[in-house]
Amino acid sequence: MTDLLWPGDERAGDLLTDAAVLAAMVRVEQAWLDALVDAGLAPKALDLVGLVGPDDVPALAERAEGGGNPVIGLVSLLRERAVPPGALESDATWIHRGLTSQDVVDTALVLVVRDALDRIAAQIRAQVAGLVALVEANRATVMVGRTLTQHAVPTTFGLVVAGWLDGVLDAAEEIGRARASLPVQIGGAVGTLAASAELARLQGHADPGAVAVRLAEATAEALGLAWARPWHVRRTPVVRVGDALVTATDVWGQLATDVATLSRPEIGELAEPAKEGRGGSSTMPQKQNPVLSVLIRRAAIAAPPLASTLHTAAALAVDQRPDGAWHAEWETLRTLARRTVVASDQAAELLAGLRVDADRMRANLDAAGPGVLAERDGIRRLSSAGSASTGGSGPAMTAPTDAQAALSYLGATDLLVGATLTRARTFLEDPA
Amino acid sequence: MTDLLWPGDERAGDLLTDAAVLAAMVRVEQAWLDALVDAGLAPKALDLVGLVGPDDVPALAERAEGGGNPVIGLVSLLRERAVPPGALESDATWIHRGLTSQDVVDTALVLVVRDALDRIAAQIRAQVAGLVALVEANRATVMVGRTLTQHAVPTTFGLVVAGWLDGVLDAAEEIGRARASLPVQIGGAVGTLAASAELARLQGHADPGAVAVRLAEATAEALGLAWARPWHVRRTPVVRVGDALVTATDVWGQLATDVATLSRPEIGELAEPAKEGRGGSSTMPQKQNPVLSVLIRRAAIAAPPLASTLHTAAALAVDQRPDGAWHAEWETLRTLARRTVVASDQAAELLAGLRVDADRMRANLDAAGPGVLAERDGIRRLSSAGSASTGGSGPAMTAPTDAQAALSYLGATDLLVGATLTRARTFLEDPA
Amino acid sequence: MTDLLWPGDERAGDLLTDAAVLAAMVRVEQAWLDALVDAGLAPKALDLVGLVGPDDVPALAERAEGGGNPVIGLVSLLRERAVPPGALESDATWIHRGLTSQDVVDTALVLVVRDALDRIAAQIRAQVAGLVALVEANRATVMVGRTLTQHAVPTTFGLVVAGWLDGVLDAAEEIGRARASLPVQIGGAVGTLAASAELARLQGHADPGAVAVRLAEATAEALGLAWARPWHVRRTPVVRVGDALVTATDVWGQLATDVATLSRPEIGELAEPAKEGRGGSSTMPQKQNPVLSVLIRRAAIAAPPLASTLHTAAALAVDQRPDGAWHAEWETLRTLARRTVVASDQAAELLAGLRVDADRMRANLDAAGPGVLAERDGIRRLSSAGSASTGGSGPAMTAPTDAQAALSYLGATDLLVGATLTRARTFLEDPA
Amino acid sequence: MTDLLWPGDERAGDLLTDAAVLAAMVRVEQAWLDALVDAGLAPKALDLVGLVGPDDVPALAERAEGGGNPVIGLVSLLRERAVPPGALESDATWIHRGLTSQDVVDTALVLVVRDALDRIAAQIRAQVAGLVALVEANRATVMVGRTLTQHAVPTTFGLVVAGWLDGVLDAAEEIGRARASLPVQIGGAVGTLAASAELARLQGHADPGAVAVRLAEATAEALGLAWARPWHVRRTPVVRVGDALVTATDVWGQLATDVATLSRPEIGELAEPAKEGRGGSSTMPQKQNPVLSVLIRRAAIAAPPLASTLHTAAALAVDQRPDGAWHAEWETLRTLARRTVVASDQAAELLAGLRVDADRMRANLDAAGPGVLAERDGIRRLSSAGSASTGGSGPAMTAPTDAQAALSYLGATDLLVGATLTRARTFLEDPA
Repeated sequence: MTDLLWPGDERAGDLLTDAAVLAAMVRVEQAWLDALVDAGLAPKALDLVGLVGPDDVPALAERAEGGGNPVIGLVSLLRERAVPPGALESDATWIHRGLTSQDVVDTALVLVVRDALDRIAAQIRAQVAGLVALVEANRATVMVGRTLTQHAVPTTFGLVVAGWLDGVLDAAEEIGRARASLPVQIGGAVGTLAASAELARLQGHADPGAVAVRLAEATAEALGLAWARPWHVRRTPVVRVGDALVTATDVWGQLATDVATLSRPEIGELAEPAKEGRGGSSTMPQKQNPVLSVLIRRAAIAAPPLASTLHTAAALAVDQRPDGAWHAEWETLRTLARRTVVASDQAAELLAGLRVDADRMRANLDAAGPGVLAERDGIRRLSSAGSASTGGSGPAMTAPTDAQAALSYLGATDLLVGATLTRARTFLEDPA
Repeated sequence: MTDLLWPGDERAGDLLTDAAVLAAMVRVEQAWLDALVDAGLAPKALDLVGLVGPDDVPALAERAEGGGNPVIGLVSLLRERAVPPGALESDATWIHRGLTSQDVVDTALVLVVRDALDRIAAQIRAQVAGLVALVEANRATVMVGRTLTQHAVPTTFGLVVAGWLDGVLDAAEEIGRARASLPVQIGGAVGTLAASAELARLQGHADPGAVAVRLAEATAEALGLAWARPWHVRRTPVVRVGDALVTATDVWGQLATDVATLSRPEIGELAEPAKEGRGGSSTMPQKQNPVLSVLIRRAAIAAPPLASTLHTAAALAVDQRPDGAWHAEWETLRTLARRTVVASDQAAELLAGLRVDADRMRANLDAAGPGVLAERDGIRRLSSAGSASTGGSGPAMTAPTDAQAALSYLGATDLLVGATLTRARTFLEDPA
Repeated sequence: MTDLLWPGDERAGDLLTDAAVLAAMVRVEQAWLDALVDAGLAPKALDLVGLVGPDDVPALAERAEGGGNPVIGLVSLLRERAVPPGALESDATWIHRGLTSQDVVDTALVLVVRDALDRIAAQIRAQVAGLVALVEANRATVMVGRTLTQHAVPTTFGLVVAGWLDGVLDAAEEIGRARASLPVQIGGAVGTLAASAELARLQGHADPGAVAVRLAEATAEALGLAWARPWHVRRTPVVRVGDALVTATDVWGQLATDVATLSRPEIGELAEPAKEGRGGSSTMPQKQNPVLSVLIRRAAIAAPPLASTLHTAAALAVDQRPDGAWHAEWETLRTLARRTVVASDQAAELLAGLRVDADRMRANLDAAGPGVLAERDGIRRLSSAGSASTGGSGPAMTAPTDAQAALSYLGATDLLVGATLTRARTFLEDPA
Repeated sequence: MTDLLWPGDERAGDLLTDAAVLAAMVRVEQAWLDALVDAGLAPKALDLVGLVGPDDVPALAERAEGGGNPVIGLVSLLRERAVPPGALESDATWIHRGLTSQDVVDTALVLVVRDALDRIAAQIRAQVAGLVALVEANRATVMVGRTLTQHAVPTTFGLVVAGWLDGVLDAAEEIGRARASLPVQIGGAVGTLAASAELARLQGHADPGAVAVRLAEATAEALGLAWARPWHVRRTPVVRVGDALVTATDVWGQLATDVATLSRPEIGELAEPAKEGRGGSSTMPQKQNPVLSVLIRRAAIAAPPLASTLHTAAALAVDQRPDGAWHAEWETLRTLARRTVVASDQAAELLAGLRVDADRMRANLDAAGPGVLAERDGIRRLSSAGSASTGGSGPAMTAPTDAQAALSYLGATDLLVGATLTRARTFLEDPA
């Protein structure tokens, strides 16, 4: 899949496409039907996989308006096509029994979102590895720290990157947490599991409700999801994913903003990885635009309102299925997830090839003048003045700033960087 | 085009699709090249239409990441393919001379957005016509007014619909205003029109800048757009469109919320138009869901954050072309516009076939009891008590509420409805 | 009023404070009562002004939760206190007759918003004047144009500022439009004007509805507002204001981002106005932060989601008064308006004293190297190659970039700047 | 504190007010100074508490604009006032040494937010207790389930409330998680802790960086916060709080929407707790508005865009301190937190006194007709038809719906409710 107006979209491949969602819906129906059959509640196993495919998407999509979602059309199609030679037509009518549309849509979305989260998690591992290398290489690379756009006091590029790294590790936590708690949605029409329990009751089961819950658990297990009580109108699982995704785009947005800023020619401390066909202009041959950073920033700017929509939808849920709020989630979640995959991949590429101009950093620091050590000099004067009472020795004021002096005013930088590296290595060693 | 996760999407047809955007970009390049040729600045007219098409979209989309937007790839393709038999290869190199990528993307987006606005404007006319009929039919249909979900005092359904109608007319104003001011974007690399002026200068023109502006004006005229000074980082034209679109979805959202609410079986005053295959459930044969209202509400819930993104992007514009904020606009604007077309079409259908149960309205009013006239009785008591000083006659308190009594407590309803109808008729008579 | 966490808040003075809102609510009650009295529908004029004041705010605010809004408490207080010596207690019971809480809250908000819009409009005039001067002073100040953070081709600072100016003029249009259409809200309980019409009917008026509308018109006139059909659940007037405000913060956000960026020490082309106590740091004596730009950007970042909330609220309106959506508007609108006043004032100050370093602009341009004329050279080569067919003379490639060369590649800059100045002067001459 | 335009605001008391923020800033300065003194780096302990107070807020707020935040003014004031009789004036100059403004603002915000989170956590415990009682009382209260506003199949009110309860428990998890990870912010000018390390170095410490980190740890401990590497531009701690808060308002929004909907007179299944002065109208004496639900919904509608702003700010962080994005967080976070406290308190009150009309629920279910069991009948027909192959017995179709029949079609309701109750009880037993 590609998107002319979202350059880089193809990086997300087939993740969360209509075809992927459709396939996931079929997987849900299959897992449920299997559970029914395994429990002896439906007569005959049917193989639904392959019965519908990408070619069916347009017709199903068009038909989706009728019921407000694509499940009715899908179930019709599955029932129509699921009759193998020799099978009774009625066997196919067992498909979807006990489910409701929302079960299928929600669980399918969870499945495709899981694929996206897995992809992001893998990309984040690559980012972390790249960042660790970048930190290590720049632990002693002094540069001028900047606050509110102005020169402040010295820092190192290693510490700056360690900050990015901590951010990416934060994002990894959020993504991992969202991934870990992804629940199946199996509740039936209003979350009571009444239809599947009825099937069990008709079969003579003593505790039909328990059978119904076991069906849901079996379905969850088959799909590799957590079982959860129905969340048709309790949308915490959705907002949790949305918040994790946007937390990730925040983090990449911050580092991309740093890269774009430090790539300004007047600053010139960083440059994006060079690549054939990357960063050019339609009319200016000399241009080398920080395109990855620009596109990552784009994603970071556009993401928060999407996550916000998921919260609004959650807040407006009503009854046993919302009258519009639920429907607003699907495409919003897909868009957010897909774009996050793209940004993640771009960030991984950006970080893997980021070019650091340590000389320029040092030159900018030198050019910043003695002001960047004014804070230090203030401390020294203070300490000197207070030496009578504190016993400290009053040092002489230093000569005008140079990188050497800056090196002596880096505080706990090395220690902080080391702590971040330790966190990163622990993360990387974790087989998850 | 269809979208499995945005049911109804096909109502927007080909509007704003990648293919439509691509075609619009070609139109922009064509109009500009024609202007160059007409001005004697480029040697030879070339017919660009048809040189690229939907099949080129995936490759162009993939290539778009390199430059951050799809124009570089498009220009390469056009230059490659534009050499007609007998023409010099170099003639094709004149394509895009004087433009910058942003000129092409922005103007193309304006063109496809214009098509969407035109479609919406036409749909709104249909909505207005439908609403006028609905108002007229229900001018005397009394119902209980509700505030904060509770019964308040009587009103008429005609007045309720007149409120919707005023809203839709407001939306029409906003859409019309946005449509009227759509500008071309022609500025060249940094908005100075330097490259095209240079062409003019090399041709010996005395006032090359004026020639460049005339080229932009000619391009605007060819495309049916207003000329404007370059707005590469002044994004008012974009936010104005976004605000108009979301104002429209607000209005439909409000009326759809009314329909969904009044369609609740316990209220039962309204029902969506009946249509084969509409409103069903995957498991509950008796269901008749207000699907159009639900899907319109969906759009209204999801739209405001998209318009918000356009504002954020506008606020973050910097230099002579933004470093990400601009890129966040494209897909956001497209999504917002396309969804608004869908919601507009759904609203038109909803309003055209809305079923009103006047008996139920009256019954609900009767059931509301005398409380709905408590305000009136308070007024009467007050007036009666004050009769010594004001000279008014103190009427007797009325018997328990019934619709007849309600009819006598409708205040200026008829007058207000009439005024809205006049506004609507004036609107409908306007040939625009 | 001040706000520790929104530095600069005091610039908005008493605009839209609780006290101002309360006073505006009293003005609405007064205007309505006067209209009743003038029409002979209420017995006696009462002077409500001064009956409640800032000291009453806390108690009224606390009491507001009971009814969901502050009007019930206010009306009680007014009725309690409005009995002048010699007057009948019952005269005071005429206060608020015919109104509903929403009439009072909405109209009062309109009044305080109007004051804010007037303040902004005045500040914008000052900004325009400052910008005109800035444009004029920098019409020939060449600088390097930047796109996607990188050097592109030359431009002038005059053109950059002209772009800001066009943006500010756009904002003026939006603010002016919002200001011009501010409507009174007078509808009574459910927008039928039933209670006031009943008063008229009891007085024997032949067309009580028309009397009620005239009362609303008289109230509007007294308050200097436009009359409008009740808009209790048609929130276009609110979103229109919100959109205008955020369009203004967008525009200032863009120019503040430019200032902050160009104030970076490595770029050094701009500096904020110097002022005692402005731009300092708590620890770094050398710092001169672009604080105004920073605070304006803050407002521009925070504003779009507030305007978005107004749209969401509009879309969720239902029945004859919304069940929460309306209540979400008040504080959102106030916050947005007040912050916009602050940002506007800061922008006026920023623009009035902006320091331009034309030498540094020229030096940065020179340092940018010949690449910034690569586009021009491409044009020349093209033209030269095509000279056989076009008759143009092929000029020699120029020597390495210098500002002189840049001056020759400014295209229509002067013409564009002139057009913006004309627009600005026309605006300034308009007595409005 | 009260807010005329945010009824109920006083429920949050002094939480997060300017005075509370100021006091928290002083606590941060105190804890840091104590750490310096304890480490022998500053000469003399000073008691800062009480030196500044609410009366200083306006002047400090006004002065805040100069530096962009209120810390410079605060430090001046503290240094000015901190000289006790007999102390050297210079002792006071040690205040704030080693900190940067952002350290103080961020940590102070963390402290006041913590108080808000604690309050919310306590309120949630009350909500959970109330919900448990409500679930238990309604475990057998049948009602009609509704999807997309229409009658679906039966459920119980106990299950509906159990869904709310699960939501509230989800919110508790998010709030608890945000609370648990609240970090101190101590980094010095650019996050290197250079100034405090310099103090240590001047005192002859062998590893000044380690001393600086220990100072930060000591400060964290004194304030009861977690130590963390500086997060000046890594805003995960902020967005995590924002997301937790809005997840909570989502959950209350959903249940408030249910209450508002089911309180509609035509449905009549729920009513808000009765309370003198609550729910009245300014003109309609009979009104009993679900004001708590309305005000909770208000908060839920307004919250997501605020959380979104925090994400946008996080994404736009740059350098070692952001140029506006940081400044946009403060008031946004405060507003979001304070409103969440209010909504939480309102939700606790709502849930504690919610009135359930079980008869009306049953009556509505009866009135819903046999359609609500159509799904069951379909299951029975299917099972019957398939009995040959599955061995199930084909039951007769039931007589028209009545509550008795509904009771037999509640599936796993009781089991699901029980599981939620278990979760709730585990939560309540947890001493945290």
